[in-house]
Amino acid sequence: MYESQDMSKSIIFARGELVQPPYDQYFTGTTYVNDLVSFESPLGCIIGNVTFAPSSRNHWHLHPGGQVLLVTGGCGWYQEEGQTARKLRAGDVVEILPNVKHWHGAAADSWFVHLAIETDFKGGPPHWFGPVSDDEYNKLPLSNAYAR
Amino acid sequence: MYESQDMSKSIIFARGELVQPPYDQYFTGTTYVNDLVSFESPLGCIIGNVTFAPSSRNHWHLHPGGQVLLVTGGCGWYQEEGQTARKLRAGDVVEILPNVKHWHGAAADSWFVHLAIETDFKGGPPHWFGPVSDDEYNKLPLSNAYAR
Repeated sequence: MYESQDMSKSIIFARGELVQPPYDQYFTGTTYVNDLVSFESPLGCIIGNVTFAPSSRNHWHLHPGGQVLLVTGGCGWYQEEGQTARKLRAGDVVEILPNVKHWHGAAADSWFVHLAIETDFKGGPPHWFGPVSDDEYNKLPLSNAYAR
Repeated sequence: MYESQDMSKSIIFARGELVQPPYDQYFTGTTYVNDLVSFESPLGCIIGNVTFAPSSRNHWHLHPGGQVLLVTGGCGWYQEEGQTARKLRAGDVVEILPNVKHWHGAAADSWFVHLAIETDFKGGPPHWFGPVSDDEYNKLPLSNAYAR
């Protein structure tokens, strides 16, 4: 099955390293980030290739300047506060408007890889809230539980 | 060989349709574009999945707000005015600063697919200049001519 593929080396773009301090405190599980366009770029748009090991995810957070996710592999989740989680697969696109509280990460049984584009970093860095609890996360189905 | 792969259905993201009028006048050959994030998005950042058939390319142009290319498949070229053309393959990233005149497109013998991110569309739409002539283009080597 596609979802059982080993994506520990990521998809297309280099995997990069484990999320480093101080950002590692905002992740649950094993996640890798490769900065394709860094915050030092004059373009004001940060782009990262993010590779989530199965069941890893980031904490609830928001971006003052918004974000776009472009999914390149595996199966994962995107959830906005107060909304049902959306299952994501390769080819999916998520537009996250400024200041919308959300989290994203892998399904429990699948690697998950996406490009993350902070569309207007001049709006300021992300605001971080608490983790997605195991109770919340474990209610989500496995990658192959049913068609999305 | 990788470069001989048929990418007529694109890579990961849906191919979309042939470049439509009035934009088709700015392309040489057969190119497809799928708007993943449209100019109507409040994010002010346009993202397209662009699929170039072998030898197709866009005209010389510039973006007042800059652009990033993320290559997802095949082999192609990026060239800034007055500079040597840079050969591109899957996993490559190109940061194009505002108002830098350039073109991009496929190698003569390869499909080429990239994500194109107009990082600050509020800066205004692209300015278009003339085509890359066949004389200029045909001086470029084939995808497998030598290591990049």
